[in-house]
Amino acid sequence: MASVEAAAIHAAVAAQRDFAASLLDRLRQDGLDEPGVTRDPYGPGEQRAHATVAAAAQSLGLALQHDAGANLYMTQPGTDRAAKRVVIGSHLDSVPHGGNFDGAAGVVAGLAALAALARLGLAPGCDITVMGIRAEESIWFQVSYIGSRGALGTLPDGALDVTRIDTGRTLADHIAACGGDPRALRAGGRFLNPADLRAYLELHIEQAPSLVEAGRPVAICTGIPGNFRYPDARIEGSHDHVGLPRRFRRDAAMAGAEFAMAIDRLWEEHDARGVPMAATIGRFHTDPALHGLTIVPGAFHFSLDVRAYDEAVLAELDAAVDRIIAGIEQRRGVTFVRGAKARAAVGPVDPAIRAALAEGAAALGIPALDLGSPASHDAAAFAACGVPMGMIFVRNANGSHNPHEAMTLEDFLAGTAVLTRWLAATVV
Amino acid sequence: MASVEAAAIHAAVAAQRDFAASLLDRLRQDGLDEPGVTRDPYGPGEQRAHATVAAAAQSLGLALQHDAGANLYMTQPGTDRAAKRVVIGSHLDSVPHGGNFDGAAGVVAGLAALAALARLGLAPGCDITVMGIRAEESIWFQVSYIGSRGALGTLPDGALDVTRIDTGRTLADHIAACGGDPRALRAGGRFLNPADLRAYLELHIEQAPSLVEAGRPVAICTGIPGNFRYPDARIEGSHDHVGLPRRFRRDAAMAGAEFAMAIDRLWEEHDARGVPMAATIGRFHTDPALHGLTIVPGAFHFSLDVRAYDEAVLAELDAAVDRIIAGIEQRRGVTFVRGAKARAAVGPVDPAIRAALAEGAAALGIPALDLGSPASHDAAAFAACGVPMGMIFVRNANGSHNPHEAMTLEDFLAGTAVLTRWLAATVV
Repeated sequence: MASVEAAAIHAAVAAQRDFAASLLDRLRQDGLDEPGVTRDPYGPGEQRAHATVAAAAQSLGLALQHDAGANLYMTQPGTDRAAKRVVIGSHLDSVPHGGNFDGAAGVVAGLAALAALARLGLAPGCDITVMGIRAEESIWFQVSYIGSRGALGTLPDGALDVTRIDTGRTLADHIAACGGDPRALRAGGRFLNPADLRAYLELHIEQAPSLVEAGRPVAICTGIPGNFRYPDARIEGSHDHVGLPRRFRRDAAMAGAEFAMAIDRLWEEHDARGVPMAATIGRFHTDPALHGLTIVPGAFHFSLDVRAYDEAVLAELDAAVDRIIAGIEQRRGVTFVRGAKARAAVGPVDPAIRAALAEGAAALGIPALDLGSPASHDAAAFAACGVPMGMIFVRNANGSHNPHEAMTLEDFLAGTAVLTRWLAATVV
Repeated sequence: MASVEAAAIHAAVAAQRDFAASLLDRLRQDGLDEPGVTRDPYGPGEQRAHATVAAAAQSLGLALQHDAGANLYMTQPGTDRAAKRVVIGSHLDSVPHGGNFDGAAGVVAGLAALAALARLGLAPGCDITVMGIRAEESIWFQVSYIGSRGALGTLPDGALDVTRIDTGRTLADHIAACGGDPRALRAGGRFLNPADLRAYLELHIEQAPSLVEAGRPVAICTGIPGNFRYPDARIEGSHDHVGLPRRFRRDAAMAGAEFAMAIDRLWEEHDARGVPMAATIGRFHTDPALHGLTIVPGAFHFSLDVRAYDEAVLAELDAAVDRIIAGIEQRRGVTFVRGAKARAAVGPVDPAIRAALAEGAAALGIPALDLGSPASHDAAAFAACGVPMGMIFVRNANGSHNPHEAMTLEDFLAGTAVLTRWLAATVV
């Protein structure tokens, strides 16, 4: 472990200010699609971002590689090439008309950290690879973590045959068009063997305002939530006349409202007990073909996404949803038809990495919050393969997945300093 | 007042069994739109029903007229043509994929009652007009009682310019296409002067299962509810990322759910106190263009229909809705945009008509329930103009506004017998 003064880390990272700012600006220009930026995965937007990042990495003297999923690897070789390597990654795609920093900031931070290490004259003991990851945003292919799971050989069955919601073309087609090799992915090939990875680190803007609220520039991730989801659930009741007395009604929308309120109360209670979770009913609607001002709704549709940071909490929430539904069905004479259920495991953060990041932030004089990730990230795909994982969140106003995200360069450099110090303290 | 034996009334009405059954069957065939029937107002479905009913009236020797709103009047002249006349009416339109009896049964009952009077050899002292009313169902133009209010000159301002939800064409266009004269309506012309009307009677299937529950074939109406409505209300919140903590959310759908539950609780409390009312949130939905599994809903849409039998209760409910909305806006950081508000006054039943109908049912040996109308009816438009009004409900299973309505011909004839006896006792 290299003993490096906090002041030296700060100075070396501050020296990357122009590099980072101009790379982020260039990425914004590449992706401009007013309002906001669109870096469509395995499409022109993401392609331009990959080309821009690859050119920046070459200017830093890093070695470039691509895998069958067309992910980009930018490597600073270590003194021991056979040692397990560290991957610093994030994604270069975006949602349609999203912000510039969601994903890209983590890739730029990785490059800036390598440049800072070089400026400090520190040679890492193992390879450090900055990874520009493909297709993280699930809105496009309705599959999450495509790039990272492709690299790790853990893409779900059938993923290559799903189609992008706008183009209608398959993921395999899109990958091939971007220089990837879908046949190799289909054969189960992987570029990254988890056993060869020492750690996976990711810096990402916070997608909620907890850091703004707390007045701190960075947070150390305590975990990535697992979830269970009912993407297409519905409630069957009885369509009836507006004059039907209450005791005769089987109102599917009222049943939906009672369900939503029970879920909201469940969350409120967990908040009060300090148990982090989130529940979102994103689609919540009567049937547009059947509903009307004077018709008691007999059909109702909803989606449910419930997330938590502890498998035991998730299991308890799952059981609570079952109880809530059973009670409403009994009281209101309706039937819930839940449809397919999807699950994602909790993405545990490595305790040693978390502790080292927190210790590093403290040593650097950077006030850091402990924060459960509000969102899902590629880091969860690495954690799921047993790779020790850690994340750093950077303060960001106005949320993400919209053009109004607002991260300051100062906060970005603070997060990058925490990352740089971890590298200096751990692998140098 | 003619003194007619109950047995003679029953026999004369029973003799109309085939006439009524075949006319109802023909109307079902005319309107068939599986599942159920669709008699779209001022459209092909309603037009066919009007033609069929007019032909049946001609076979009974009645005189036919139409007004500027294209309502159909089928008149048995009285011995004194200058005497105030009796109108027996109901509507010939339906909701989409509705049942055959909702509305049409009342028109058929009026014709059958006139035929029964003729069979009894009774000549009415005043004109008795059976009225086939247009466009009662508010689902199409989001305006209620269009035909009857057009006839009475009480259409609300702007009604002729509203558009039908499916065609997008204005009411004025639709009326003109069916042979009506929207310019005459716009000029405030009326076909029926309330001062010239002795009474308005309407027979209608019950749209709730109270008669099924009570085991009685008919009910005498005690009142028609007034209502207030928000046909197109919405809630504005904030579309956010699925990971946003609860305290930061401005979830429009959760606000909608809380609103619906508060309305439901209000109704439950009124039921417990024995104060009749109804509340229906018929449209209740996130925005299909914006919603998604992993997006906190920032927009929500709903309709509200609140009805009660007492103006004071309605005013109190109106104030309660205001309080509920203000509380939710404050707690959840959302804004309710209520849009246009519609009102309909409570429709009082004439006490003398109500008493005479009840006395007649008793004389005929027909067990009748006293029942507040679950639904709104054209009769309320007549009552609002000061016309003495009464209604007879006929037992009907499975509600209405759906294809599963089930009225038996026996119950229909029982209701028609009560109507016939009232005519025999009152205007002969």
